[in-house]
Amino acid sequence: MKAPAPLEALTAAFKRLPGVGTKTAQRYAYHLLQHDREGAVLLARALAEAGERIRHCARCNTFTELEVCETCSSPRRDPALLCVVETPADQLTIEHTLSYRGLYFVLMGRLSPLDGIGPRQIGLDRLLARASDGVVREVILATNFTQEGEATAHYIGGMLRARGLRVTRLARGVPVGSELEYVDPSTIAQALRDRRTVSEDGDA
Amino acid sequence: MKAPAPLEALTAAFKRLPGVGTKTAQRYAYHLLQHDREGAVLLARALAEAGERIRHCARCNTFTELEVCETCSSPRRDPALLCVVETPADQLTIEHTLSYRGLYFVLMGRLSPLDGIGPRQIGLDRLLARASDGVVREVILATNFTQEGEATAHYIGGMLRARGLRVTRLARGVPVGSELEYVDPSTIAQALRDRRTVSEDGDA
Repeated sequence: MKAPAPLEALTAAFKRLPGVGTKTAQRYAYHLLQHDREGAVLLARALAEAGERIRHCARCNTFTELEVCETCSSPRRDPALLCVVETPADQLTIEHTLSYRGLYFVLMGRLSPLDGIGPRQIGLDRLLARASDGVVREVILATNFTQEGEATAHYIGGMLRARGLRVTRLARGVPVGSELEYVDPSTIAQALRDRRTVSEDGDA
Repeated sequence: MKAPAPLEALTAAFKRLPGVGTKTAQRYAYHLLQHDREGAVLLARALAEAGERIRHCARCNTFTELEVCETCSSPRRDPALLCVVETPADQLTIEHTLSYRGLYFVLMGRLSPLDGIGPRQIGLDRLLARASDGVVREVILATNFTQEGEATAHYIGGMLRARGLRVTRLARGVPVGSELEYVDPSTIAQALRDRRTVSEDGDA
């Protein structure tokens, strides 16, 4: 006995998603067919629509429906600041802080030679061209603080500095609201190295 | 800043899958758009096709493209044996043992009053009608050995016995290949209660 072909095909399609194995794919397929046929229709439609309408912003490389995304074409953004992030999710995270008014460049990944992801896969020449437009003064590297994210920042930073740009990195240190006892030693070590003078009004 | 509408819609659609939250849904959407556009097309097509072609077998309730599934219409199956399982996945698991030649009834769930899943939701009257066809002699309850699965077996068992059918349950005991040291006490207790006389030729 085998599952019917359309069910097998659906399970196989779900298995292409990251981190989804046979059991999970089966669970998704059964769930939609048994409990949420409307969800299946919605998902099929959303996939088709996104596939058709979503492309990359010509300037910052993020997902957008436009030639140039809303952020890049906003006149209220500071075009002298360029923040480099790995993914659109990271970009959204920074936007949610409400404390950045510059522009972005989204790598859509990070350097990972073992996975075959080199400078070309993360659109490095596009980033270099973008940062060399004569308006950008400072590039803020906001890749993840993982090994690969750090390596990516290091590599990109070198190339940007060679073009005479000011390159900065998000500060490393103790997360806001955390108790020292539970912070890992390498973070504390970094926070010690990068310690800041406290001014008279108590502000760091 | 917000993600473009088609991307938001795709993320929302993925969130309807069981156990999928915002982060995972986003990861799925980004992955397909960034790395696997072909996968998105395949998934959309598989969803549409499965939604259109998959229905429930009129006899055993499993997923099938036919009015009556292949298993139910096979002449090589013993129609006097009916095995009750929770899902098509469980049915496949039993088929893979190659040691069952009877027929099935798939509940497509289990009793779970707190989730609003009662006898009607698991098609109990259809099971009773199916088991009372005059051909079925024995019903094997193969629901899961979880609390809900056991309760379902208990409930169904009572109703089937009242109709004069022989009702059996899969044996509980020590899994094949396991070391006693690592088997949980309640399984060992059950295996002690259900211990079997060993015959001369060494077979249990």
